[in-house]
Amino acid sequence: MSGTFITLEGGDGAGKTTQADMLGQWLDGRGLEVVRTREPGGTRLGAELRRLLLHGGDEIGDVDARAEALLYAADRAQHVAKVVRPALERDAVVVQDRYIDSSLAYQGAGRVLDVEEVRRISEWAAGGLWPHLTILLDLDPETSAGRRRARGGSADRLEAEDTAFHVAVREGFRALAAADPHRYFTVDATLPVDEIHTRIIGRVSGYLTR
Amino acid sequence: MSGTFITLEGGDGAGKTTQADMLGQWLDGRGLEVVRTREPGGTRLGAELRRLLLHGGDEIGDVDARAEALLYAADRAQHVAKVVRPALERDAVVVQDRYIDSSLAYQGAGRVLDVEEVRRISEWAAGGLWPHLTILLDLDPETSAGRRRARGGSADRLEAEDTAFHVAVREGFRALAAADPHRYFTVDATLPVDEIHTRIIGRVSGYLTR
Repeated sequence: MSGTFITLEGGDGAGKTTQADMLGQWLDGRGLEVVRTREPGGTRLGAELRRLLLHGGDEIGDVDARAEALLYAADRAQHVAKVVRPALERDAVVVQDRYIDSSLAYQGAGRVLDVEEVRRISEWAAGGLWPHLTILLDLDPETSAGRRRARGGSADRLEAEDTAFHVAVREGFRALAAADPHRYFTVDATLPVDEIHTRIIGRVSGYLTR
Repeated sequence: MSGTFITLEGGDGAGKTTQADMLGQWLDGRGLEVVRTREPGGTRLGAELRRLLLHGGDEIGDVDARAEALLYAADRAQHVAKVVRPALERDAVVVQDRYIDSSLAYQGAGRVLDVEEVRRISEWAAGGLWPHLTILLDLDPETSAGRRRARGGSADRLEAEDTAFHVAVREGFRALAAADPHRYFTVDATLPVDEIHTRIIGRVSGYLTR
């Protein structure tokens, strides 16, 4: 595989979708094939699972923590097999919202599950595929909550969790970035949108021209 | 937990549902609380996953083997947490069609996945819960195919697999039974229904009066 796999991570409201779109457009402008995708929900199966996980509500009742982690892993397995690997095999650049790191930060750090077991299952699901570059949009939970409120709409299951959970998720992401500085590039998500974009393309350029 | 967990295993058409119903009625007649359930599909989440796995078809496209194994594991995690453990904690007898052994026989022996990894994920999903007693209704694939044809209706995804697959599944079940004779009780599924039932209640009686 000779493509490039770039993921964006961070809490809700950190600007992942905006920055992923801007990065995708910038890469497209350089003549590269770009595949913009996300987890959960990047395949037809994944879209069904995303609907169950985030908006199942009364339809499915309370979801057990292990069941939830396994559904995210199933979404990942399908997505890697059907979208990410084929794109990388034809030299595309994959720009993706959320990947294994989100599972580790949300399920491992934020919940009650053993983080090493969640990592093992995620890696198995992904067939051992890790991103070349992961951009962490780091945002304190209070600013994040304010942005989500400003965005309006009903809170989904994860967004309705309490502040302590969002603090644990942020710390989980920061610990992952600290443990893998070669793969991770952390940006302060309170900066202006264009400044964040400039920093991201600086890092991506450096990677692509190596 | 002081209840009893009994699973029925075997290929499609072996008579698991019939025998599980008869066993459940017999146990009920002895004044025991019986929970008759199955995987996949024993919870509301599981029913959604069963629908996706067996009848997704064009709606979700081809399902990756790892994704499929993880969906079965998610169904299992939810089912054990919400149905099986609560029943065992109130001293009920759980009589269940299919459990971890089906994952091992179908996903491990029949497909391309590493059986030890499938076992590890299934055990994690189930929180390490194994049945007290597993009844294997052993049937050769040709008789099984004939029964499925006689039953009519459209073949679901698994039933449409070829004969070599069903042979591999049967061998998988027989190897599991041979490896764990204390837990497993194998019955020839070509015997008359009443004779199979008599043999099963003989074994179950022996277990319950220990």
